[in-house]
Amino acid sequence: MQPDLEVFVQTHRPAVERALDEVLPAEDVAPAVLHRAMRYAVFSGGKRLRPLLCLAMCEAVGGAAAAACRPAAAVELLHTYTLVHDDLPCMDDDEERRGRPTVHVVFGEANAVLAGDALQALAFEAAAGTVAPAGRSAGDFVRELAVAAGSRGVVGGQVEDLAAPGTTDLAAIRFIHRRKTAALFRAATGLGALAGGAPDDALAAAHRFGDALGMAFQIVDDLLDDEPPGGPPGAGRRETTCLAAMTPDEARAAAGDYVAEARQALSRFAADRVRPLTAISEFVTQRRH
Amino acid sequence: MQPDLEVFVQTHRPAVERALDEVLPAEDVAPAVLHRAMRYAVFSGGKRLRPLLCLAMCEAVGGAAAAACRPAAAVELLHTYTLVHDDLPCMDDDEERRGRPTVHVVFGEANAVLAGDALQALAFEAAAGTVAPAGRSAGDFVRELAVAAGSRGVVGGQVEDLAAPGTTDLAAIRFIHRRKTAALFRAATGLGALAGGAPDDALAAAHRFGDALGMAFQIVDDLLDDEPPGGPPGAGRRETTCLAAMTPDEARAAAGDYVAEARQALSRFAADRVRPLTAISEFVTQRRH
Repeated sequence: MQPDLEVFVQTHRPAVERALDEVLPAEDVAPAVLHRAMRYAVFSGGKRLRPLLCLAMCEAVGGAAAAACRPAAAVELLHTYTLVHDDLPCMDDDEERRGRPTVHVVFGEANAVLAGDALQALAFEAAAGTVAPAGRSAGDFVRELAVAAGSRGVVGGQVEDLAAPGTTDLAAIRFIHRRKTAALFRAATGLGALAGGAPDDALAAAHRFGDALGMAFQIVDDLLDDEPPGGPPGAGRRETTCLAAMTPDEARAAAGDYVAEARQALSRFAADRVRPLTAISEFVTQRRH
Repeated sequence: MQPDLEVFVQTHRPAVERALDEVLPAEDVAPAVLHRAMRYAVFSGGKRLRPLLCLAMCEAVGGAAAAACRPAAAVELLHTYTLVHDDLPCMDDDEERRGRPTVHVVFGEANAVLAGDALQALAFEAAAGTVAPAGRSAGDFVRELAVAAGSRGVVGGQVEDLAAPGTTDLAAIRFIHRRKTAALFRAATGLGALAGGAPDDALAAAHRFGDALGMAFQIVDDLLDDEPPGGPPGAGRRETTCLAAMTPDEARAAAGDYVAEARQALSRFAADRVRPLTAISEFVTQRRH
């Protein structure tokens, strides 16, 4: 990890963890099994990439990162619920995530559906609890998240992914990845910009950055997941991959183009404020897992 | 149906249907199968009891019903998603609802999970789109709905319901029914009061009304569902019923007590403005289906 990014992560990640811990009911609140399942899903060693992007974008537009902690937690809760539901037997049927048994394996299928449902509701509760800067309302934060989360965003992408397994049509692949992955990156950076008091043109730049970075992230994911057909045993359904439509070299070039597009969007902001975002965009393309 | 209630329903139900139609993406928006599933679930002949309660409470506190159409739609979308998920094979495993095949039977299990997920996101998008009266923000509407929907509300109730099948402990039964049913009635009337510009004490009275009416509604549901053990073939899992802890006569008396409590809460409002709410509370206890 780049020194710039390491400092940023060490400074801000504890605040993300704290915000998540604050909004999640304690494990002994009834129904305890539900709150245990929710916390099991959220505190599972994730990189917190989306909330850190939210905080970094808030700083890039001139805000204090602390102002974005609540929406950052909201994005992570939303992301976590989608993972819990994606892993379900009727979806990708994954039994492991990040080296641990998935939520439905530990808590049962019904509780996994319900823990996901409750995490989604909690994400919106957290977004609505944001103290909005002048000219914005809490409703703006909720709408930003809801549009990314709903049928024209993450859920729509997953429906298309399930409907078109192994598609080789690049337009279809992009449709899926823009919704399934990039929509939430876009919401993360949009929420950070909103929290930092960005005017509309800076919000638009934050959206362009998040969208392009999300597309790059997904291509790198596809490259890292590239395995013989069928994948390792017990690894669940094979998701849509850009490698069905391009060679690894073409994919690496496409990821580079998206990162360049993301960097270009950052030119809207003060150069001394975008270093963490630049470092995150480098991390996204150079990561090995 | 009482004449007062019939006039109210005929006047306001079209506005509820219109608000739902406006917020739901059209069936030809991609992914079409998802938007078809969402509309199949929402337009399925429901009574629209919760949105009508929302509109009636808005009028009771002195607002115009039109101001509550957006949050009323939000409550119905939220309610609809919970039905779609409750019907899933891993939950109540119901193949029919209101005389039609359930969403997972028509669209498949994965699409039913995802249609429910998207309906929940859309509910919060609709709530966030409310034009808040002076002194309230769109965030207040979202929080009202999110708390009712989440792990301390509807989802928590369903988890306990699944964990304690056939419980005969009245406290456990009330815990479940307060969350699974009354929480959303309470949110419906709370949102109506918020939309109508109610001050805090009127909002509290709206909450008391919704909570008590929801508890009465659930008891009547249990009485109407009262069938020989096991129920009719193919009717899915038997849910928690108050008749496991009391006789039908005791249940009818308890429902009457809750309705009296609800009526008492209405004394906070102008008598000429609560007639639709009074009529709905009569309908709830006297209904035959």
